[in-house]
Amino acid sequence: MEAQYVLGIDVGGTSVKLAVLTVDGNLLEKWNVPTNKADNGAYILKDISSSVKEHLLNLRLDKNQFIGAGIGVPGFINMEKGMVDFAVNIGWRDYPIVRILSDYLDMPVVVDNDANLAAAGEYWKGAGTGADDLIMFTIGTGVGGGIIVKGDILHGVGGMGGEIGHVTVVPEGGTPCNCGKAGCLETVSSATGIVRIGNIEAEKNKESSLYKQKQEGIQLTTKNIFEAAVRGDQTADAVIEKAMYFLGLAAANIANVLNPQKIVIGGGVSAAGEQLLFPLRNHYDNFALERVKLDSEFALAELGNDAGVMGAAWLAKTYLKD
Amino acid sequence: MEAQYVLGIDVGGTSVKLAVLTVDGNLLEKWNVPTNKADNGAYILKDISSSVKEHLLNLRLDKNQFIGAGIGVPGFINMEKGMVDFAVNIGWRDYPIVRILSDYLDMPVVVDNDANLAAAGEYWKGAGTGADDLIMFTIGTGVGGGIIVKGDILHGVGGMGGEIGHVTVVPEGGTPCNCGKAGCLETVSSATGIVRIGNIEAEKNKESSLYKQKQEGIQLTTKNIFEAAVRGDQTADAVIEKAMYFLGLAAANIANVLNPQKIVIGGGVSAAGEQLLFPLRNHYDNFALERVKLDSEFALAELGNDAGVMGAAWLAKTYLKD
Repeated sequence: MEAQYVLGIDVGGTSVKLAVLTVDGNLLEKWNVPTNKADNGAYILKDISSSVKEHLLNLRLDKNQFIGAGIGVPGFINMEKGMVDFAVNIGWRDYPIVRILSDYLDMPVVVDNDANLAAAGEYWKGAGTGADDLIMFTIGTGVGGGIIVKGDILHGVGGMGGEIGHVTVVPEGGTPCNCGKAGCLETVSSATGIVRIGNIEAEKNKESSLYKQKQEGIQLTTKNIFEAAVRGDQTADAVIEKAMYFLGLAAANIANVLNPQKIVIGGGVSAAGEQLLFPLRNHYDNFALERVKLDSEFALAELGNDAGVMGAAWLAKTYLKD
Repeated sequence: MEAQYVLGIDVGGTSVKLAVLTVDGNLLEKWNVPTNKADNGAYILKDISSSVKEHLLNLRLDKNQFIGAGIGVPGFINMEKGMVDFAVNIGWRDYPIVRILSDYLDMPVVVDNDANLAAAGEYWKGAGTGADDLIMFTIGTGVGGGIIVKGDILHGVGGMGGEIGHVTVVPEGGTPCNCGKAGCLETVSSATGIVRIGNIEAEKNKESSLYKQKQEGIQLTTKNIFEAAVRGDQTADAVIEKAMYFLGLAAANIANVLNPQKIVIGGGVSAAGEQLLFPLRNHYDNFALERVKLDSEFALAELGNDAGVMGAAWLAKTYLKD
């Protein structure tokens, strides 16, 4: 019986996403289980395993038909050792995830960082299909990233490759970042950063609808800010312009180093679509080398929340192939 | 007769460096031929070929004992097509270098950018030995770069990967760069950049020995500036500090993306050694993520002018192996 299926698993703070796919990427089934964070996440892998066994039974598939499972975790991963060094939102620390999960599932397992796998998912079956050199920015609460070089995930020596959100874009007087540095891209171009700049600019521009909204006790969100800009609010427009200036600078600098074919923008903030891409491209074009600019194209992520499981399945098929 | 030798060729503006090596990197012979730039470099490959044949005869080696030849060229290269798109200092444009040279030599040939090959040379047999993830900065008239990811040269989709010198470090009001942009790393941290800043600062600080030197009609060089700093000249010190601030910022930002094990500094300016590395490390540490910083180490290039031929030989053994 030739191995022809892969299992993709994406561990998140509230739920674990799972999917069964063929090695060609055809989805047979996808489902979720809740993330049980009790006892520092000690039950999560057992829950995954029970659920997988049940689903394979229903699908009439045997574990021997699987190349194996890929699993994505938000945190610092040592892929070679199969360890989660630290996953703050899950509770795992120095956790031998590959050994435990492969024992439970009785199939080979490979682990990687969730942001890397989102990039791999978009590369395999999303906005980056066919682009063997690709950068993905995931713009949500923070700015995450994943990089594909020559058709493989860029890991770096310690698994920290692709930490795009912590490129310094405000070298002097920048806002402190969760990482311990200051002036990181994440402080100005994430949802959090955009809202922070929005609050500052609203106070400075009392004619702005953002100021009025705040006066009414309604907290600013990126959605509000993008909507206000559509209505012609110049303050909202300037906030977006500033966030995209820094994102364009960082994207161009990374592109000058990597010469990618595609730059994929995902995460919650990417819902703004062309309203985000237009100023982003504009600033990118100013800071990218001519040939680098001509080689590259921006694209909105296509897989949404499925990027992680798709990337995990890609990881299994790519890293576990016999 | 098993193929066990490689030929490394490094085309420069004044001379072509050549070397015969075993696949393990043992040097049998190295020599130079002048670069004949007449008729847009039309005779260079023929000169190389004649010289190689002569040397192989003397070494009693047959072309069938060679895996092939690697050749490095300063310019834009299309490696897959075996073309030099444009090499301004040599005169080649849309030049099918692989086809012509492999006809002349009657062995397989592979071409790459000279800066990439300098990085590969240091990775194979120099300061970066064993570091499968490596960044090399070549600081001379300009700032060149080469990147090794997972033991292979990073090329990007169009061969522009590693254009480290054109990362923007002064986004607003930067000095115009040869590339058409402004505020590139090359404008502040190359020898040219350091001398340019030196001239500006010398005029502003008339007590500096740099000002006195200029008054005597002696042009500033990076060597002068580093020497003045050793003597305690504060203006010279501030010039070096500024150049290394920007180099440290760029190196940290690239490292945050690539998570390298080694950052190799080569080129003429690297002769300043610890006088350069000390302020560089200091600024790098400010802008690099903690884990990225812990994973990485600075090193001075070890191969000097031989890095290019060594890298070209590495390219042949790596890309032409049957």
